[in-house]
Amino acid sequence: MPAITPRTYDPREFEALTFHDRTPRFRDGTDSPRAYLERCIETIHEREPIVKAFVVLNEDSARAAADASTTRWKAGRTLSAIDGMPIAIKDLLETNDMPTQLGCEAARGNFPRRDNAAVWALRKAGAVTFGKTVTAELGGTQPGPTTNPFDPRCTPGGSSSGSAAAIGARMVPAALGTQVGGSVIRPAAFCGNVALKPTQGGINRGERQATSMSSTGVHAGCIEDVWQVVIEIVQRAGGDRGSPGLFGPPAPPAAIKPQRLIVLETTGWDALDSASRSAFESLLERLRSAGITVLRRSEHPYIEALEAGIANAPATCSAITGWENRWYQRNMLDEHPHGFSARAKAALAKAEAMSLDDYRAALAERAVAQQRHATLGPLADAVIMLSCAGPAPLWPGDRPGEPLAPRPTGDSVFNLPSSMLFAPAVTMPLLGVGGMPVGVQLMGQQNEDARMVAMARWMLSEVAPVVMR
Amino acid sequence: MPAITPRTYDPREFEALTFHDRTPRFRDGTDSPRAYLERCIETIHEREPIVKAFVVLNEDSARAAADASTTRWKAGRTLSAIDGMPIAIKDLLETNDMPTQLGCEAARGNFPRRDNAAVWALRKAGAVTFGKTVTAELGGTQPGPTTNPFDPRCTPGGSSSGSAAAIGARMVPAALGTQVGGSVIRPAAFCGNVALKPTQGGINRGERQATSMSSTGVHAGCIEDVWQVVIEIVQRAGGDRGSPGLFGPPAPPAAIKPQRLIVLETTGWDALDSASRSAFESLLERLRSAGITVLRRSEHPYIEALEAGIANAPATCSAITGWENRWYQRNMLDEHPHGFSARAKAALAKAEAMSLDDYRAALAERAVAQQRHATLGPLADAVIMLSCAGPAPLWPGDRPGEPLAPRPTGDSVFNLPSSMLFAPAVTMPLLGVGGMPVGVQLMGQQNEDARMVAMARWMLSEVAPVVMR
Repeated sequence: MPAITPRTYDPREFEALTFHDRTPRFRDGTDSPRAYLERCIETIHEREPIVKAFVVLNEDSARAAADASTTRWKAGRTLSAIDGMPIAIKDLLETNDMPTQLGCEAARGNFPRRDNAAVWALRKAGAVTFGKTVTAELGGTQPGPTTNPFDPRCTPGGSSSGSAAAIGARMVPAALGTQVGGSVIRPAAFCGNVALKPTQGGINRGERQATSMSSTGVHAGCIEDVWQVVIEIVQRAGGDRGSPGLFGPPAPPAAIKPQRLIVLETTGWDALDSASRSAFESLLERLRSAGITVLRRSEHPYIEALEAGIANAPATCSAITGWENRWYQRNMLDEHPHGFSARAKAALAKAEAMSLDDYRAALAERAVAQQRHATLGPLADAVIMLSCAGPAPLWPGDRPGEPLAPRPTGDSVFNLPSSMLFAPAVTMPLLGVGGMPVGVQLMGQQNEDARMVAMARWMLSEVAPVVMR
Repeated sequence: MPAITPRTYDPREFEALTFHDRTPRFRDGTDSPRAYLERCIETIHEREPIVKAFVVLNEDSARAAADASTTRWKAGRTLSAIDGMPIAIKDLLETNDMPTQLGCEAARGNFPRRDNAAVWALRKAGAVTFGKTVTAELGGTQPGPTTNPFDPRCTPGGSSSGSAAAIGARMVPAALGTQVGGSVIRPAAFCGNVALKPTQGGINRGERQATSMSSTGVHAGCIEDVWQVVIEIVQRAGGDRGSPGLFGPPAPPAAIKPQRLIVLETTGWDALDSASRSAFESLLERLRSAGITVLRRSEHPYIEALEAGIANAPATCSAITGWENRWYQRNMLDEHPHGFSARAKAALAKAEAMSLDDYRAALAERAVAQQRHATLGPLADAVIMLSCAGPAPLWPGDRPGEPLAPRPTGDSVFNLPSSMLFAPAVTMPLLGVGGMPVGVQLMGQQNEDARMVAMARWMLSEVAPVVMR
């Protein structure tokens, strides 16, 4: 891996770290989970001083777990296809061997010594849970120290900042993230990851039930690894309580070529930089050349109705999330009065001004948008849209005495739709704009996670990425 | 209050402790929240050595809260209609001033210093959160030390054992309980309480999201207090995330006389003792005399279809709950290998033998039962059924060397329907059988909580209780 020169990312050349294609060598003894882990540790030592993806590293217990996996591979007694895979865990998810500090001063030293459901499932599958990655405070907007692996002057996105950056920096082959607004898809898009944000409830969130639109998602270097991690979790821990859990085959689904795709523009389209817009339009042109029909908002009233139904998404999602978080955040703040950033305090104050009727109105608006999304099912195979509003913006940090920047980890306008629609979304590193990654996502109807992965697999192998300087 | 002689309960004579009818005296100064609390403490000191309803009592902080409330009542600046009301909290729900030990050795000393959402809302409403009440282990079947306040040889029911017993013993006017199978309605019925188990999601469960069919419920001495506590919580904390929360007026809804009621027999009917059956039939006869139509399973195919749909409820509910609890219980047991009872370990082992497909099959069965229940909506105002399979059974404790009794806190056969149907249920102390309380419940369609309370209010004031010696 060459050293990173700022703004040199090219999706045609970048070689992400992968796992599934190494396991044949674990079997024949020419490689091992322990050796794989050591390469990860080496990369971390090299890149971490600038990237700052991790809050905690558990090198010793990871080595022990990798050694146990090495033995299982040699003996032909692996626990799953991801046995021995080093997987980093976002620091919002509890781990029995590392503290869980939520990127929040009020949770400093929090160490409940139990595993989140997905982490528990990963251990049962023989994966090596390796380190806790930086999260924006409480999964919100106050950034942690992580920098973008392709230009340290830029945000890695958030709130799954460290998970996305660790994949982009080739430190680990996979990482768990979580999304309420855009916290998996946007950082993954800024850092050149493949990632899946599942159907709402598709992956058991365990103790992380804070909001009705939060999901656990998976970041990785390739679509095959994303799927394998997802399905190994679901087979063991299922989905959220009351949900049947994500549906799909035990190995990555075969590629499916989509026939018709719907473009969702969102209110972010008009404000988009022209290079990103041109890159996305070029990608659509490549899809058309491949025989795929691409539908836009002017071409069907149902599409226009959904665009209208999500136009108010920032306010709707902020109201829902704010109300649902206010009770537990007030608990934390009462116990630790100096434990929140100014951004987190302002968000809580806004939520505490809400009434139950305000919340009910936001829920109703979300339900209407979901109904409108459902009407698109028969029209096309999936929605295609940008995963972020252009490349990762510069983030110089807050300046004392000046008002707080509103979106230090980037704009979630392209991420809120899949969150509020409870829809599966897969982001793919198909664009390079100004030397930085820009993701493109496929979004399906609820429970179409495997179909989205199958179509992403087709696109990643058959559609040439677009580069715009 | 006369001392309790075993098996002398008579629903026509028992005077429960109430709160709403005392508040005018707080206003005019002839009584006060502090004096009310002192009477509660006096009763607790008198009855607690036998009843054993509480795990922890916070007398000092309760006195301080009651004094603050006394000041607010004098100044005419109360926070709500339940300002100053002493409310006991089931020890499954977190409280920032008392430990939360779940009736489980593995959670001994657990003290996370935060409030459950409903507890948080009660504090905001000025209520005096007073003591933690005994729960069966982890809300399951392993009983705690609590005895039935009307006969200490008998179970108080479970898992909300202490909450129900504290109301039956007139120790407090209201208590929070929780129900997954029958943990609110059954102990309330065994202990002569009025209680509401709300529509699924109607009361914010806060951190208690362990299962898809658990609810927070309210036990009290009268229906007016039940409603006031419920609605003050919901106005402040809402329902579960994603749920609109329980609907209803800010004060107890006026009584409504039902016109038509459906009797649900369940598979418990055949095994029922003849005195309880006669008492229930006499009550139905009184309703018919009042002009109410009573429909039985033979009289409409939809009723028969629902009876069939819930016939397998014990296995279905046990599968759903077992799967949903297994991840967090395994976490606890791994951390505290000697921290579970033999009953809890056996339940976990059964759940760990399940596959995701087993769980999905149980969810599907539950969904079918819910659809069948919905078809009854247009047929009648509510379902009426027993709240328990006769009076509280004797519970002498497990005997060393003998197999564990399967249902030490009573049979949940009359409680599982409202749980699995996500339906609101109100239990009323309308029967006395062999000198012990037996409850009767009204169960509505989802979100009909206020209507059920209104009809319960009518029944409690207009229908004479039935006593069978």
